[in-house]
Amino acid sequence: MKNNVKFAVLGGGSWATAIVKMMTENADIVNWYMRNTDAIDHIKKQRHNPNYLSSVEFHTEQLNLTNNINEAVAAADVLIFAIPSAFLEGELKQLTVDIKDKIIFSAIKGIVPESGLIVGEHFHDNYNIPFKNIGVITGPCHAEEVALERLSYLTIACADMEKAELVAKHLSSDYIKTKISDDIIGTEYAAMLKNIYAIAAGIAHGLGYGDNFQSVLMSNSIREMKRFIKHVHRMKRNINDSAYLGDLLVTGYSVFSRNRMFGNMIGKGYTVKSAMMEMKMVAEGYYATKSAHIIISKLNKKSKTPILKAVYAVLYEHKNPKKVFKALTEKLD
Amino acid sequence: MKNNVKFAVLGGGSWATAIVKMMTENADIVNWYMRNTDAIDHIKKQRHNPNYLSSVEFHTEQLNLTNNINEAVAAADVLIFAIPSAFLEGELKQLTVDIKDKIIFSAIKGIVPESGLIVGEHFHDNYNIPFKNIGVITGPCHAEEVALERLSYLTIACADMEKAELVAKHLSSDYIKTKISDDIIGTEYAAMLKNIYAIAAGIAHGLGYGDNFQSVLMSNSIREMKRFIKHVHRMKRNINDSAYLGDLLVTGYSVFSRNRMFGNMIGKGYTVKSAMMEMKMVAEGYYATKSAHIIISKLNKKSKTPILKAVYAVLYEHKNPKKVFKALTEKLD
Repeated sequence: MKNNVKFAVLGGGSWATAIVKMMTENADIVNWYMRNTDAIDHIKKQRHNPNYLSSVEFHTEQLNLTNNINEAVAAADVLIFAIPSAFLEGELKQLTVDIKDKIIFSAIKGIVPESGLIVGEHFHDNYNIPFKNIGVITGPCHAEEVALERLSYLTIACADMEKAELVAKHLSSDYIKTKISDDIIGTEYAAMLKNIYAIAAGIAHGLGYGDNFQSVLMSNSIREMKRFIKHVHRMKRNINDSAYLGDLLVTGYSVFSRNRMFGNMIGKGYTVKSAMMEMKMVAEGYYATKSAHIIISKLNKKSKTPILKAVYAVLYEHKNPKKVFKALTEKLD
Repeated sequence: MKNNVKFAVLGGGSWATAIVKMMTENADIVNWYMRNTDAIDHIKKQRHNPNYLSSVEFHTEQLNLTNNINEAVAAADVLIFAIPSAFLEGELKQLTVDIKDKIIFSAIKGIVPESGLIVGEHFHDNYNIPFKNIGVITGPCHAEEVALERLSYLTIACADMEKAELVAKHLSSDYIKTKISDDIIGTEYAAMLKNIYAIAAGIAHGLGYGDNFQSVLMSNSIREMKRFIKHVHRMKRNINDSAYLGDLLVTGYSVFSRNRMFGNMIGKGYTVKSAMMEMKMVAEGYYATKSAHIIISKLNKKSKTPILKAVYAVLYEHKNPKKVFKALTEKLD
């Protein structure tokens, strides 16, 4: 691979902002695409993103900001996507620049609604990107703690370990430690599934279940996640590594997780619709639940996924959360 | 086994009180030994333990309270010990009644300081109790949530599954679900080790590490626990079952855990001695750290236990917590 590889970060949210911060510790220039031109102007003048992680001060001479996705893509060898999965396809539709020779890393946690695929598979199946050029950046990592430069560990997965190493090197710093992995499918599914379990944790909390139950729910969640991922992509992995268990815990135990918050409102009696309206956004786990349910329904083998089924019943079949979780408690151990 | 088995709970603390509450949902009479005669008088008159879980109201006609350990032991077939491990041997020294034909269940989380053994092994080695008559009652379970009748799951382990079943049946109720296991050694070690990892979580928190790091620490802790237990007692077990991972999480993520609190004070700059004085008690994980360190040092095989080593270095070698944890962060992933 050539020296002096160029990077673009695509997205203007908190996770995109955190990744740009990490990259600017290492790269001379980071190409940064976001739609919001006001935010771009603000960053150029005030040196920080007004909407997300606003405490982070950038050296603007390191940033090549643009609201033109083609400009950012054309300027870079490695594209890091940090756009909510629901908006990804809309952004990709704007591309006129060819991406087939780009290296594509996903920092997106979820399923692309249009294809029902995880992001890596979506790029592979719909954009003919070979798997050796596709990677995943995964936590456990709240963007807010990156802003505070609190020590965090990332896992960078790619079938081509040299590319994983390259991206890892550019994200590493005093406060970011990186680990590489070849399990792009498993890490992506874990990042998606953990949001479903965070919704379950929120529902349970909203219904009045306590810490004892929460720990049992998390213990069952990681076992369920292991079975699920094993069914969709069997390979040797330790489900207790940070990219799987760590990511589940940082989300499931976080009171700041939007997915957990969404679940909590459902548990407290909000309807799905009113919870969404109240939050002014859709939690990623909402889509993930449907996608995961479809995936598991299509499997030939039966997989025991009682927690996923319970969340699906509450969110999509409008079943009573109290009754559904009461029945779920009989299936956990 | 004969019908109408008689139980005695030995101990007057919060966990003992919670176990008595669970048993009274099923047994006609529970023999209950505690040292404190004032507390016994209070329970008899006021129907609740003045010192622990005081919101729990007992039907005193179900309780056979005594401050004479021999009386409680003589009256029962199954003895449930819920005395802090540091005081166990002192209590056992008072026994004049023979316990060799009793069924003994430990609800104690820790190592007996006099022998350096987990409780089951201590009874086996020093009191000639056969392993088939020794069992363990383990969480994840904060006693406080039992008092509130919040759904909790217990694991009851015994080499003789019929005895595990018997005890499980007597602890089960609307708010207590039980699971049986034959891994008495592994569940006991897990219950002991989790307190060390809770101290580590507390130290990290006290030093200013955030939620991202905490999740990585817990992910590494469960892997370390798995290696440790495998070395001391190899058998087929799923370390992500509630008795292992669940128990670790309920302690490591609890702000009420005494072990976590103790670690937090150390992280904030208290000396070990001043933290103990401030807490007016010794956290069980303090002893567990020493015992686990001795056990691991004696092993022929090298076991990778960086978290245990870090906690040991801080608590017993008076090393600087900040430096020790900085070095530890390099060993985690």
